[in-house]
Amino acid sequence: MDERKIIVLVGDGMADRAVPELGFKTPLQVASVPNLDGLASEGSCGLMDPVRPGVRPGSDTAHLSILGYDPFEVYPGRGPLEALGAGVDVRPGDVAFRCNFATVERRDGELVVVDRRAGRINEDEGTRELARAVNESVDLPVDFEFREAVGHRAVLVLRGEGLSPEVSDVDPKETGVPLKEARPLSDDPAAARTAELLNEFVLKAHEVLDGHPVNEERRREGKPPANAVLPRGAGSLKDVDPFEDVHGMSGAVVAGSSLIKGIGRMLGMEVPEHEEVTGRKDSNVAVKAELALEALDRYDLVLVNYNAIDEAGHDGDAREKVRFIERFDRELVGGIVREVDPEETVVFVTADHSTPVSVGDHTADPVPVILWTFDARRDRVTRYDEVSVSTGCLGRFEGLRLMEILKDAAGRQEKFGA
Amino acid sequence: MDERKIIVLVGDGMADRAVPELGFKTPLQVASVPNLDGLASEGSCGLMDPVRPGVRPGSDTAHLSILGYDPFEVYPGRGPLEALGAGVDVRPGDVAFRCNFATVERRDGELVVVDRRAGRINEDEGTRELARAVNESVDLPVDFEFREAVGHRAVLVLRGEGLSPEVSDVDPKETGVPLKEARPLSDDPAAARTAELLNEFVLKAHEVLDGHPVNEERRREGKPPANAVLPRGAGSLKDVDPFEDVHGMSGAVVAGSSLIKGIGRMLGMEVPEHEEVTGRKDSNVAVKAELALEALDRYDLVLVNYNAIDEAGHDGDAREKVRFIERFDRELVGGIVREVDPEETVVFVTADHSTPVSVGDHTADPVPVILWTFDARRDRVTRYDEVSVSTGCLGRFEGLRLMEILKDAAGRQEKFGA
Repeated sequence: MDERKIIVLVGDGMADRAVPELGFKTPLQVASVPNLDGLASEGSCGLMDPVRPGVRPGSDTAHLSILGYDPFEVYPGRGPLEALGAGVDVRPGDVAFRCNFATVERRDGELVVVDRRAGRINEDEGTRELARAVNESVDLPVDFEFREAVGHRAVLVLRGEGLSPEVSDVDPKETGVPLKEARPLSDDPAAARTAELLNEFVLKAHEVLDGHPVNEERRREGKPPANAVLPRGAGSLKDVDPFEDVHGMSGAVVAGSSLIKGIGRMLGMEVPEHEEVTGRKDSNVAVKAELALEALDRYDLVLVNYNAIDEAGHDGDAREKVRFIERFDRELVGGIVREVDPEETVVFVTADHSTPVSVGDHTADPVPVILWTFDARRDRVTRYDEVSVSTGCLGRFEGLRLMEILKDAAGRQEKFGA
Repeated sequence: MDERKIIVLVGDGMADRAVPELGFKTPLQVASVPNLDGLASEGSCGLMDPVRPGVRPGSDTAHLSILGYDPFEVYPGRGPLEALGAGVDVRPGDVAFRCNFATVERRDGELVVVDRRAGRINEDEGTRELARAVNESVDLPVDFEFREAVGHRAVLVLRGEGLSPEVSDVDPKETGVPLKEARPLSDDPAAARTAELLNEFVLKAHEVLDGHPVNEERRREGKPPANAVLPRGAGSLKDVDPFEDVHGMSGAVVAGSSLIKGIGRMLGMEVPEHEEVTGRKDSNVAVKAELALEALDRYDLVLVNYNAIDEAGHDGDAREKVRFIERFDRELVGGIVREVDPEETVVFVTADHSTPVSVGDHTADPVPVILWTFDARRDRVTRYDEVSVSTGCLGRFEGLRLMEILKDAAGRQEKFGA
């Protein structure tokens, strides 16, 4: 059999629970999803535990698992993933932090946080210039890279020998209180050194930012200046083999969310960028479908993540979640499936986790899946939702097995034995 | 989301196989269980392997597993569990035994077992006085506690440094033969010492019991005297973390069976007692439901075990098993569910294992389960039995995952990742 291409379509947080205002149905159960129903009718359906039953996954740990990496072994924390997602080249040994641009005032000799998001400053208001100034003017005894990310966010990567991610946050997570001093969280001298370097960085960044023209302008406009950086969530990459070495196939991740882009880059996968693919509710789904189809020409496996559904789940908005699910079905699933040949392609549809509107956060409930290719077993499921797929011929399985299952369906799996 | 309470209702041995005299249906399939059917209709159903597929669980190993403890790692054997169930404070390092009160005669200088149950002597016939006499009058070079249990049963706990559970049984398990001498089962000097101590205890207990007024009276009445103690099933507790530390929630076990009470105590859970809750067919189910509801006020999780169903299974009595299942549905499930609010409570119904009447003992067949709370996914199952639930939206999962699944349903599970 010829090897087939594989495309994995992830509706982020798409799975849900019974919603009272939807007559105790789930958003998927009430949504009109003709493309997904068509795939379900012609494919194999089932339920997947993204990590394992009862584990509430993050989008990051779930994506690691479904890409074939045990998140209990390789999850590096959010800092390195956000830094990778923002385009910084994080390497093993580096220590990475998520940061906010923030507003601070000097009171009684201390820097007190006035606004943790500097008036929700964003990319159009000069965060790139501010980041460049910090990079150029702050002098540390180690290499570092500081870069703006989405909105008021930024990332910091410290690089050099003898660093440790075991340091506490500078971000106090509240206003009206001083910056926290980073402290070592272990006896390792590298942790003490890293904490010192981080505190030095925060003070020097404040000096650079406080008098920066972008902030002078903000003060004139009555906006809070972005005159401090608040690092948190220190982490280091684990030493993981690239996706292509692990699975014997090349891979790309098409996503707007920096966290998911970070996962792709951590695994050495291609991560195409497009300014209209944002990972937010305004993301351009048609462009994302095009990026995915282009990637599928060049790579053996492409994972496409659509994040807006999850945002609606976090907002607890059942009606909006239904609308984003319908958009996922129409523009992404429809847009891709009509362009691929089932004899040459395996399409797998899933959520990375449930984000029930009744909870407003991720839960461990298993997610509905479809495996579609020309010779997939056709079970009796004709509808894609959490309940309908539970009688499907895939039963219930764990996400860490998914890559092997897909490689098998695509004629890419080695035989074990004779 | 607010945290919900969790109540786990266990019909002990409730699951079964096809019974020819029931038209090849199971007792659950023919029983009238309107409360369970109601929960199934409004909840998520599935099949659970209490330990794992193909493993025939004891009630003890099954309960350990569904309470989130791997029984292959922590099962201490029956001795410590029965001792805990009888109210003895067993600690790590102690060696505990199940015992029978028995009747022995001296023949050719040997103590020969005449009746392994001393005429089925029971609590109303003086076992407490006999146990107290043994405790007070037997002198050993280690601490020990000997206590009467249900009927002709008792428990013995040896306490001190340098003891080992690796010793053979004194109980020969048949009549007309001498008591067995306990022997060490390993090269560990502690095993040899423990065997010696156990043999010394058995001889000294016989001396105390043989002339005890309770036995003088029994001889006058023509009853066999309870003039010996037959220990068996040596075991020591493993070092396990308490339920509250492991799961971050407080827990109680409501059960009549001493084995299940022992499990609760081994895990540091509250185990309320009531004399009418016996663990036998005569147990007062309404009182048990009240105890459970009281415990649910004070604890985050309450497990309620109803043992009579299992006894009917062991007796191979299909009709009686149906009757006890209907009683479980009416008095325990009905009595509890009508008092709880589905927005504040997660109800989980299960059996701990199958006890098919065709076998008369536990089997590994998976057990039917229902997860019910206001936002549980509502699958198409409307009937609670082994066959109907198999199309439910929980699929099939292992008991060791249950606590994580329930904590997730109850808003008590930590998220792993971002």
